[in-house]
Amino acid sequence: MNPSRECSWGILGAANIARKNWQAMRWAGNAQLVAVASREMRRAERFIAECQGSVPWPEAPRALGSYEALIASPDIDALYVPLPTAARKPWAIRVAEAGKHLLTEKPVAATAADAAEIIAACRANGVQFMDGVMFMHSARLGEMRRRLNNGRSVGRIRRIASQFSFLGSDEFRAGDIRVNPALEPLGCLGDLGWYNIRLALWSLNYQLPQRVWGRMITESHAAGQGVPLEFSAEMQFADGVSASFYCSFVTELQQWASISGDRGNLYVRDFVAPFFGSDVSFDVLNTAAVRNGCHFNMEPRAHTVVVPEYSSGAATAQETNMFRRFSELVLEGRLDDSWGDIALATQRVVDACLASARSGQPVDL
Amino acid sequence: MNPSRECSWGILGAANIARKNWQAMRWAGNAQLVAVASREMRRAERFIAECQGSVPWPEAPRALGSYEALIASPDIDALYVPLPTAARKPWAIRVAEAGKHLLTEKPVAATAADAAEIIAACRANGVQFMDGVMFMHSARLGEMRRRLNNGRSVGRIRRIASQFSFLGSDEFRAGDIRVNPALEPLGCLGDLGWYNIRLALWSLNYQLPQRVWGRMITESHAAGQGVPLEFSAEMQFADGVSASFYCSFVTELQQWASISGDRGNLYVRDFVAPFFGSDVSFDVLNTAAVRNGCHFNMEPRAHTVVVPEYSSGAATAQETNMFRRFSELVLEGRLDDSWGDIALATQRVVDACLASARSGQPVDL
Repeated sequence: MNPSRECSWGILGAANIARKNWQAMRWAGNAQLVAVASREMRRAERFIAECQGSVPWPEAPRALGSYEALIASPDIDALYVPLPTAARKPWAIRVAEAGKHLLTEKPVAATAADAAEIIAACRANGVQFMDGVMFMHSARLGEMRRRLNNGRSVGRIRRIASQFSFLGSDEFRAGDIRVNPALEPLGCLGDLGWYNIRLALWSLNYQLPQRVWGRMITESHAAGQGVPLEFSAEMQFADGVSASFYCSFVTELQQWASISGDRGNLYVRDFVAPFFGSDVSFDVLNTAAVRNGCHFNMEPRAHTVVVPEYSSGAATAQETNMFRRFSELVLEGRLDDSWGDIALATQRVVDACLASARSGQPVDL
Repeated sequence: MNPSRECSWGILGAANIARKNWQAMRWAGNAQLVAVASREMRRAERFIAECQGSVPWPEAPRALGSYEALIASPDIDALYVPLPTAARKPWAIRVAEAGKHLLTEKPVAATAADAAEIIAACRANGVQFMDGVMFMHSARLGEMRRRLNNGRSVGRIRRIASQFSFLGSDEFRAGDIRVNPALEPLGCLGDLGWYNIRLALWSLNYQLPQRVWGRMITESHAAGQGVPLEFSAEMQFADGVSASFYCSFVTELQQWASISGDRGNLYVRDFVAPFFGSDVSFDVLNTAAVRNGCHFNMEPRAHTVVVPEYSSGAATAQETNMFRRFSELVLEGRLDDSWGDIALATQRVVDACLASARSGQPVDL
């Protein structure tokens, strides 16, 4: 496919999250950022100047003042698209139709039907699709899978619980696109709950829940007209396995997950983005209840698994791995449809959770 | 009231949990166990012989072959009643009517109406009531309260989540009283969820939830006829504060709680019964999201608060504190009605959760 040893990238939309991914592309080792497009040339230029000042490319990417120009650029293999969710579908489909590979921010779309259209367009045009869930590319996930599969650390999974929250500033709650129904109609459910749902699906090897119960705890505007600011859900899978999550823009940063089975528990305190400055790790906890005469004690057997990966800012960080892996798929000319399947499953669960919250009734999948 | 410096105790029902409380009375310092009653004299004798072999009293308690005889014993101030829940109410009321103070196992009763009757009987007869939730008497709780009140560690509480589970053996699931609808009609909701609910109520200074959603995940017998083996619930409090819990007899031992606010988080890995052999502690986590150019990091500020208390088998263990505190109330002749209020609030939430699960609808309190 591509004769060079590097996948050439463009960024469509100068969003804040794209700064972190600029850095990730820079360190991937097999990626080359060629251009950044904004609807305003000056915004693209400023974004590039700022990022070059922080994490410079040997040759600065070029600035473009239109998305169309970026999509038409013949020297670009893949586009990273962090546009607002409500604006994303038409551009994502154009990217695919132009034969460019697509790595898009999450949520993929406002609805599962829209997400399905985007993913179908990628398949029809023979381009790779992937959503921007960085933790899927952490070395930690492989280590966690080994414990989930070994039959001892956790055993048969019975319950998954997780929380992903951060406290939006007053400014955030007043004006950020993530609380604007016209731009991010899924609010915290799309921005944060996406990760909670993904972790549950990943843990259960991408089984879909059979039924979900969603609850809108806090809504940005009048009931039914706003976006979720705080949301909880319960999910029922086959064989009585269940999961719950809570996501919130009004609760201080938390990103923990607990996976419990009939043998033990796996606990991650920072499953979305590893805390900076500490080991990337998770805990395995198996407890014995020991009775001896009148003594009755719960004796924990816990150990922490440290994963040889730096939390951020390194060649082995999860976001760097994401761009490296995507670039490999492009360079090797082998498309991996599973990334589209996983993203669509996630969006279907998001849809069901929101529909349940709106109706006050469980929703079956 | 009592002229001696020790509160004299009887145990009504030779249950397994009473072994731990035998030990707790022995170490309380102001308690004297005088008698143990079972419906079979030989069972009481065997219980006493076994416990004397493990944690001896200088003078062995006497064995009684009838509950009536114990309740009528003039040398006993207080009774600890670990009878099965379904059998407890008539005996508890007799205890109160005999002018004896009552420390009862949880759940207090099969329904909130029954619990209210028991507590009312204690008040009418001027005796102390308390349920056997040991963690209420841990030194840890005071330290946690200080962090919840300081405005910085957690701030305003937004979300509480907890899990209390253990894996019942095949034998347990086949024959333990806790899975027998005729003896323990509340199953894991009464045996384990009681603690989850209590922790949430304690955290919120005993506000009742306004609405609860309960879900029966696994039931012991045909739907509507069994007891909960696995149960989850969501609770809505005033001002959008929410809590969820999961309790289970089919999931390996877990007893974690997470209390999140708008400033930070308090995490306890063993809130019910401190893990043996390790410090009694909890974690306070405050995280800063730091952006610097293209670098974006979540920087945790975590510290562990270690409470000077041994986890079990000591004069400062929570169960020992429970008997010491109860004995103090008796010896000092000052009754504390708040213990009855707290227990009744807990039972009301249990009732609401179960009613919601049975009906498939939220229940308002």
